[in-house]
Amino acid sequence: MKQVQVKKPGGLDNLLLTEGEARDPGPGEIKVRVHASSLNFHDYAVVVGLLPVDDGRIPMSDGAGVVEAVGAGVTEFAVGDHVMSHFFPAWQDGRADCAAKVGSVPGDMIDGFAAESVTMPVAAFGKMPRGYSFEQAATLPCAALTAWRAVAVEARIKPGDTVVVQGSGGVSVFALQFAKAAGAHVIATSSSNEKLERLQALGADQLINYREHEHWGDKVTELTNGRGADLIVEIGGSGTLPQSIQAVCMGGHISLIGVLTGFSGDMPAAALFQKNAVISGITVGSQAHQRDMVTAIETNGIEPVIDRSFPLDEIAEAFRLQESQQHFGKICLAY
Amino acid sequence: MKQVQVKKPGGLDNLLLTEGEARDPGPGEIKVRVHASSLNFHDYAVVVGLLPVDDGRIPMSDGAGVVEAVGAGVTEFAVGDHVMSHFFPAWQDGRADCAAKVGSVPGDMIDGFAAESVTMPVAAFGKMPRGYSFEQAATLPCAALTAWRAVAVEARIKPGDTVVVQGSGGVSVFALQFAKAAGAHVIATSSSNEKLERLQALGADQLINYREHEHWGDKVTELTNGRGADLIVEIGGSGTLPQSIQAVCMGGHISLIGVLTGFSGDMPAAALFQKNAVISGITVGSQAHQRDMVTAIETNGIEPVIDRSFPLDEIAEAFRLQESQQHFGKICLAY
Amino acid sequence: MKQVQVKKPGGLDNLLLTEGEARDPGPGEIKVRVHASSLNFHDYAVVVGLLPVDDGRIPMSDGAGVVEAVGAGVTEFAVGDHVMSHFFPAWQDGRADCAAKVGSVPGDMIDGFAAESVTMPVAAFGKMPRGYSFEQAATLPCAALTAWRAVAVEARIKPGDTVVVQGSGGVSVFALQFAKAAGAHVIATSSSNEKLERLQALGADQLINYREHEHWGDKVTELTNGRGADLIVEIGGSGTLPQSIQAVCMGGHISLIGVLTGFSGDMPAAALFQKNAVISGITVGSQAHQRDMVTAIETNGIEPVIDRSFPLDEIAEAFRLQESQQHFGKICLAY
Amino acid sequence: MKQVQVKKPGGLDNLLLTEGEARDPGPGEIKVRVHASSLNFHDYAVVVGLLPVDDGRIPMSDGAGVVEAVGAGVTEFAVGDHVMSHFFPAWQDGRADCAAKVGSVPGDMIDGFAAESVTMPVAAFGKMPRGYSFEQAATLPCAALTAWRAVAVEARIKPGDTVVVQGSGGVSVFALQFAKAAGAHVIATSSSNEKLERLQALGADQLINYREHEHWGDKVTELTNGRGADLIVEIGGSGTLPQSIQAVCMGGHISLIGVLTGFSGDMPAAALFQKNAVISGITVGSQAHQRDMVTAIETNGIEPVIDRSFPLDEIAEAFRLQESQQHFGKICLAY
Repeated sequence: MKQVQVKKPGGLDNLLLTEGEARDPGPGEIKVRVHASSLNFHDYAVVVGLLPVDDGRIPMSDGAGVVEAVGAGVTEFAVGDHVMSHFFPAWQDGRADCAAKVGSVPGDMIDGFAAESVTMPVAAFGKMPRGYSFEQAATLPCAALTAWRAVAVEARIKPGDTVVVQGSGGVSVFALQFAKAAGAHVIATSSSNEKLERLQALGADQLINYREHEHWGDKVTELTNGRGADLIVEIGGSGTLPQSIQAVCMGGHISLIGVLTGFSGDMPAAALFQKNAVISGITVGSQAHQRDMVTAIETNGIEPVIDRSFPLDEIAEAFRLQESQQHFGKICLAY
Repeated sequence: MKQVQVKKPGGLDNLLLTEGEARDPGPGEIKVRVHASSLNFHDYAVVVGLLPVDDGRIPMSDGAGVVEAVGAGVTEFAVGDHVMSHFFPAWQDGRADCAAKVGSVPGDMIDGFAAESVTMPVAAFGKMPRGYSFEQAATLPCAALTAWRAVAVEARIKPGDTVVVQGSGGVSVFALQFAKAAGAHVIATSSSNEKLERLQALGADQLINYREHEHWGDKVTELTNGRGADLIVEIGGSGTLPQSIQAVCMGGHISLIGVLTGFSGDMPAAALFQKNAVISGITVGSQAHQRDMVTAIETNGIEPVIDRSFPLDEIAEAFRLQESQQHFGKICLAY
Repeated sequence: MKQVQVKKPGGLDNLLLTEGEARDPGPGEIKVRVHASSLNFHDYAVVVGLLPVDDGRIPMSDGAGVVEAVGAGVTEFAVGDHVMSHFFPAWQDGRADCAAKVGSVPGDMIDGFAAESVTMPVAAFGKMPRGYSFEQAATLPCAALTAWRAVAVEARIKPGDTVVVQGSGGVSVFALQFAKAAGAHVIATSSSNEKLERLQALGADQLINYREHEHWGDKVTELTNGRGADLIVEIGGSGTLPQSIQAVCMGGHISLIGVLTGFSGDMPAAALFQKNAVISGITVGSQAHQRDMVTAIETNGIEPVIDRSFPLDEIAEAFRLQESQQHFGKICLAY
Repeated sequence: MKQVQVKKPGGLDNLLLTEGEARDPGPGEIKVRVHASSLNFHDYAVVVGLLPVDDGRIPMSDGAGVVEAVGAGVTEFAVGDHVMSHFFPAWQDGRADCAAKVGSVPGDMIDGFAAESVTMPVAAFGKMPRGYSFEQAATLPCAALTAWRAVAVEARIKPGDTVVVQGSGGVSVFALQFAKAAGAHVIATSSSNEKLERLQALGADQLINYREHEHWGDKVTELTNGRGADLIVEIGGSGTLPQSIQAVCMGGHISLIGVLTGFSGDMPAAALFQKNAVISGITVGSQAHQRDMVTAIETNGIEPVIDRSFPLDEIAEAFRLQESQQHFGKICLAY
């Protein structure tokens, strides 16, 4: 079976395609024939060496496949079940308060899903939404769960709330879809009118081309008749935070879930406290969050938007597309 | 201008049609030409004398109309504005913790909207949803706001949650509509297959005829694969509470918003605490809740379901239809 | 090592003292020399046969002791650590939404702590508060955690809130102590002036002898100048619920955590919904709740109130004292 | 009656002492003989011209005094009642979502309490805690309510939580007192060992001299055995935010309530989102928050810490003491 390994010092040219077959499952483990993964910024940081990992690490936090064998004592799954991964196998539910919970993310401190065959503890997997493909399922554990937690858990969006999503990456498109499923009014931003049209087709109610409106926070204020938005799903991080604080309503919510424009930067503290607004840092979610999200996806027939799928041995090409920022939605690996 | 008054000791045959013109508005007041009202159980209790009021009281808590004149210092509304009533003019926002808040419900301890002309403090009114008729707006301040508070405020339903609504009265139909707008899976109950079909047309995902399933709580358990529902919008009160406790999931929510089947009755306390479930008593909502609901209605294009409208002088006929329980959705007065 | 077993059909005269030594711990298990347990209504229901269990079951959900041996892969504890039990070993954190969580309560569907030697999965245990005795620790996993969840989790009591506690059983005394630690004003009820004095010594601010005030709900209303209490810790269940609904403030909270006066009974639904109050059913809590509680106990130096301790072979005497309702606080077994 | 006015362009030497008697109260107004005020950073910004106001404005947002006369329709207060001010007379309760709520802060866009005689709408006042002096009450409406909202409303601190307070200004000392009343463990920071001793005497459990520990966030991590604090009451703003993010626990809370070290500055976004922590901007609170706080103060006998009181005509001296940062707790004006 094929697999991909990250070789020091990292870099897309340094990804190594090897052969490997996962061991038989021990007690509490399952062996899975993986059929798909999807690309996230976290995976990119691993494969190019921004986030250093052990030499030979198998990358990719997301995976979906079929159970091939179950170890002793496993009651959760049977051979043949379709399963998808958990970003935090150690975070069952509740508050993100335990260091251990973040210590074993697949594709980071332990091997991940860029492999056709894996054996992992049963907690590493959850159920796939019924009727969805492996590629669709593989888009969910990191990007969709992050968006879900912002919209449905932290900001707890209700019908009529206004939500701003930034650009057309995986998290933003899922945030748009979940916000619409929750009955919200969605304002989408992008630098491309063509992408804005696609966001509109997915349900965006109002559009802002931020090349035309550099101070898009003011534009959100204008579009909301001076009130501002209830939630800004902030994926840019430090570079866009001042605009998000301008865009949010009194008592509103900014979900800080990405650092695309910088790991640190200026934050207008006075504006934030005058608005009585909340910034909540979000790193994906728990297994309970994932179960709720899967139910929401099934109930509302939400279809993950996949830009393109690559075979496993073209993983470097897949990351180059991600790097180019030309994609819309998720990029997948299918194998 | 026509108006209706309740004469002691109450009763549908004792409703008196009189003439009256509201006074000019004083400081902080507005004068409104009322064009519609809608019937609630609370109004029924007033007009038949279950809830005794002063002799000559003008009933009806709900009203919608056009501003005819504004008193000194009024900045919220201008002549010509379309307005609808607040059930609790003294409850602006926040916790229902002040006795004063419940002391001045129109059509109860003060005069209400069964009158073509009224003059009231500005706090008695809020904005109508844009593009909606007076009759549609008049269905909202009591029934819809009660349903909104159950679904969107207390249980804070998110996409994928399961909601049970009982029957086809005004509150239940609004609860169904709000739950669907919030992305929920809705199970509707009724004693009539014809009504169940109409509930399905409005979005209900699963149906239970409770004549066929007296223990409909067990049927909900079955339909949810043993899990139970996240929210039961309980309008029956004491008579149906045991089934609701059976139907609710672990850690779920029962919104107790009506007492149609009795003001008091048996409650299986042991079952409730084993389920770690919550029963929350709900009496309508605040002005802030109403603003949020109006935005949700506009955003999602929710159309109030009106069974039939009567002219003001046929108010007794309107209440007889309500009494018959044959209606589906709301009954209105239009004038 | 000594242990106690429940023999069919149950009953205090049917408790059997036997000898038994727990097996060596397997992977993920620890072996504990138990030194103390404490009595709860749940245990009483088991030993007298109200809650039927398998023949030979070792009862008692609460236990505290010293780790004697650890199995392979156990990193949470080392030999010599002082540990106390978890009521729900399968409930780590978050919502009580999984049937599995309530399926393996020690002393009920699996063997419990009426034994000097036990071997259980590591999840069955948590840390004891530093500086506390085994008997003190053994009072915490069921009664204290129930009180903690009512006060600190569900009602989330803040300084200045008013809390009503009923009687002087284990849960009520802990609720009083936690409410005082949270800065609340506490009203205690009892049928005995002597017990009321002891509750006052523990911090109760106002006292009601409910033999003198059968309608103690009205007395609470009077003592709070008509406002009512923010939280009623309801341990009586159906028999006292009507008084609790009378006693609670608008928008207040009733924690339903016991059914001493009946498993089912009359509930004045109309009063509940007019008050916009909440009844939340509570069955103990999660491991995360227990960690928080242990920290709160350490931080505030809260001392569990122990009425009397019995040796393990006098377990029937211990339950007879509990049955008599003459105790104040907790009854322990020490061995 | 004496009063103070701010003259353009502002500055402590430009404060003008004049004579003035408030008008008789109109409908819905009360006339109050003010006896005390207290100094906040907001007042300082007004009097020195950082926050420009109309020429002749009477400064000071906080006031306490005796009702001298009541206008028509006033039922809330009677002549002789002891009253204290509301920072936001237009914010009754609930979400801070209305621009109107922040538009009429006394001593800013309307006249404030640096006057022996004022006439204002009844909503500008609330009840004083029973048994407290005017000076004590005058410390509460801005500084104490801000601290209350951080501790008891936004972070909702429970017994055993760890709270970090910064320095010994008014908000920080109240935050310490409210956190202790709520059963929390408090870590206090200061640049002065003498002040740290006084903070300890007020209940602080652990102390950090941030001159000795410039990276006091690391010291908090160490003192909490690596876990971090549940709440950082952040009064420094941009300059101290990076340390606060270092100090907060996974899933913890930073209350951003001041900008002493800068209105804008660097924010380590990556650290925040990895911690799944929340920053909530806080500007004082509502009338409902103030009522709850007053009850908490009465219930727990919390004594406001007053550094020194000045007569009204020494207001410039009072602000010079505030400017020097040598004070501990609140500085008052008494007249």
